[in-house]
Amino acid sequence: MDNNTELLTPETLRLVGLAIFRALGASREEAAIVVNELIEASLMGIDSHGVMRYIQYAEEIWSGQIKPGAAVKIVRQTPSTAIVDCGFNFGAVSAQRMIPIVCGKAAQNGIGCVVSRNSNHVGRLGSWVERIASYNMLGLAVVNVSKSRHAVAPFGGREARLGTNAIAWAAPTTGRPIVFDASTAMISEGRLRLHAQTGEPVPAGRIIDADGNPTTDAGAFYGPPPGAILPFGMPLGHKGYGLALLVEVLGACLAGAQVSEEMAQRNGLCLIAINPDAFIGRDRFRALVDDLKAHVTSSAPAPGHSEVLMPGDIEQRTRARRLVEGIPLSVETWQRILAVAKRAGATLPVTS
Amino acid sequence: MDNNTELLTPETLRLVGLAIFRALGASREEAAIVVNELIEASLMGIDSHGVMRYIQYAEEIWSGQIKPGAAVKIVRQTPSTAIVDCGFNFGAVSAQRMIPIVCGKAAQNGIGCVVSRNSNHVGRLGSWVERIASYNMLGLAVVNVSKSRHAVAPFGGREARLGTNAIAWAAPTTGRPIVFDASTAMISEGRLRLHAQTGEPVPAGRIIDADGNPTTDAGAFYGPPPGAILPFGMPLGHKGYGLALLVEVLGACLAGAQVSEEMAQRNGLCLIAINPDAFIGRDRFRALVDDLKAHVTSSAPAPGHSEVLMPGDIEQRTRARRLVEGIPLSVETWQRILAVAKRAGATLPVTS
Repeated sequence: MDNNTELLTPETLRLVGLAIFRALGASREEAAIVVNELIEASLMGIDSHGVMRYIQYAEEIWSGQIKPGAAVKIVRQTPSTAIVDCGFNFGAVSAQRMIPIVCGKAAQNGIGCVVSRNSNHVGRLGSWVERIASYNMLGLAVVNVSKSRHAVAPFGGREARLGTNAIAWAAPTTGRPIVFDASTAMISEGRLRLHAQTGEPVPAGRIIDADGNPTTDAGAFYGPPPGAILPFGMPLGHKGYGLALLVEVLGACLAGAQVSEEMAQRNGLCLIAINPDAFIGRDRFRALVDDLKAHVTSSAPAPGHSEVLMPGDIEQRTRARRLVEGIPLSVETWQRILAVAKRAGATLPVTS
Repeated sequence: MDNNTELLTPETLRLVGLAIFRALGASREEAAIVVNELIEASLMGIDSHGVMRYIQYAEEIWSGQIKPGAAVKIVRQTPSTAIVDCGFNFGAVSAQRMIPIVCGKAAQNGIGCVVSRNSNHVGRLGSWVERIASYNMLGLAVVNVSKSRHAVAPFGGREARLGTNAIAWAAPTTGRPIVFDASTAMISEGRLRLHAQTGEPVPAGRIIDADGNPTTDAGAFYGPPPGAILPFGMPLGHKGYGLALLVEVLGACLAGAQVSEEMAQRNGLCLIAINPDAFIGRDRFRALVDDLKAHVTSSAPAPGHSEVLMPGDIEQRTRARRLVEGIPLSVETWQRILAVAKRAGATLPVTS
C-alpha cells in the first residue's frame, strides 16, 4: 500500500456500483449481477476484470453499446445446443442467463453447448464455468474479442490478428470446485498498460515491436506503428496459437461471427456443460476429481514453491485476504469511479 | 540422411505391418486400421506415433495387453453421450469405432461426447479429430495416459504426476481441415529418449532433475532418482498444468478411471463432436473458418519465418515430401521391426 492506493470494502464498492447502474437505467437485478461479478473479480485479485470496469460499462451505456434491460433470447436451438442473442445487455447479465440454458440441456441430454451473439464484455470467464460446476457439472468456456481489440500475433507472424482469447474450465469436487481460467497470450493488455504508465520493462519473451523483433518496451507495443503480444507458450508458441484459434472457432465461427470484420459485439462466448450423471454419476465423478487433486498435489514442491496448488487456489486466498483487508484501488481509479457516479446522477452512500 | 537411416516406402511398411498383425491374429480390417494410422503419422513426421510402434504393439499382443478382435461396446449412453468399453482391442481400432458414435450423436442432437474405457494406445490424436471434421463437424479430443507413464510435474512441483496429456481439435474448411494436436508438456518422452541416446543437451526450460532444479541432461530425467518434464508454457507453466488437469478430468474422471491408481488401460480418450448444422449451418461455418484462416495468415511474417501457417500445415508438407522421398527409419528400428515380423511368423514381401 502506498499513498496512491485506497483500500475499499466490498460493501462500499457494491453500494457505489449499484447506485451507478441503477441511475443509468439498469434494473435492480441486472445491476446486482454486474456489480457482484466485478466485485468478485476484484476480491480474487483479477483487477483487470474488477470494479475498474464500472467506468467502462458506464461509458458504454452512455455510448449506447450496453443496453440495460435488453431481452436475452434463444434464437436457434436443438435439444443440446443453442444460439443466444444477448441483445447488447450487460455481458454479465447475458452470460448469467446462458447458464441455466446450457445446464438444462446437459441435465436432459448429458451435454450442452450454448454460444452468444451480440454480447458485451462478460467479465471473468472463470465465473461462468464455476457456476456450471455448481450444477455438479463439468464446465468449459472460451471467449474471443472482436477485431478492433486484436492484440496478439499468430505464431510466426508480427501483426496482431487474435485477441487474448481465454479458456476456462471448472470441475466440482467434494470441496470447492477447481476453476481454471487463462488467456492464450503471453501477457494481458491491462498489464502492458501498467508497464507503459510506469516505464518498467516488460518481462522478456512477451511482446514484439512492429518489425516483429522481441522487445521489453511496452511503448513499442502501443506504437505507432503498433507491435503485438506473443501467443502463449513461447518458444512453443504454436501451441498457444492453436488454442487461440480454437477460441475463435468456438466463440465466433460457430455463432456466425466473421473474425475479419469489426462487429459491434465485444465478446463471443461459448459455454459447454457436461453432466457426469450421463457418464459415471456425479458422486463418483466428484470423488475421482478429489482423487486427481490429491494425487497431483502430493508431489513434493519444486525449489521456490512451498506446495502444489490447484487452479483457482491463489484467487481464493486473495479473496479471503481482501475480504478482511479491503480491495486496493488506485486513487485515480477511485476518483474516476466517483466522477462517473456523479455524472450518472447516482445517489451515493457516505463513503469517506 | 546418413548411414544409420533407411528410407522406406509407405507401401513396403504397409505390407510388413499388415503381415505382422495378421500373423498375430488381427483381422484384415483391424490390421489395416492400425497400420494405416501408424503410416500416416510417420508420413506426417510424427515419428514417435509412427511405424516404430509396430514393435510395441506386437509386444503388447504377446503380453496380452492388446487383444485383437475384442468387442468394442457402448456400456452406457444418452442421446448425446456414451461410455465405450474398448475391450483392450488396438487403441486405433476402438478410437475409429468411437467416431461414428460421437458424430451420430452430434448429427442428432448438435453435440456428442464419448469417452473410452479399457483403451490401448490410440496413436496420433489429431487423426481422430480430423475424422470428426470429415463429417463437417468441429472435433475436440483429449487423451491421458495411465499412472506408470506419468512423466510431467505439476506446476510448482518436482515429481511426475501427469502424463504428457494431449489436446487436439479440427475444423472443416472449404479445403483441408485445420488440425491442431499438441501435448501439454514442454517436450515429449520420445524426444528425451533420443537426447539420452545421443548425449545432446535438452533445450533449456524443458526438464528438471529429481531435486526440481532445471537441467539440460536427459540422464537426470531418467535417473534414478527420476526427474520430470515441465508442464507446457513455462515460465507460465500454470497454464499448461491447468490444461493437463482438464485432460485428466475429461479423459479419466468422466469415464470412471482413478488417476492415482495404476490401470491396465493405456489411454483415456474423450471425443467431442459439435455439429455446425445445429448452429450456423455447415456451409456458413466452413466459410467463416476460411475467413478466420485468411485473416490470421494475412499477418506479415515475423523475422525468421516466411509465412504464417495453420495448425497441421507442417505435417501436410512433410507428408507430401515423404510420399515422394520415403519414410526415414533408423536402421536399428527397421531391423527390430523385421525381427518382430520374423518372431510373429509373418510372411514378408520382398523388401530389399
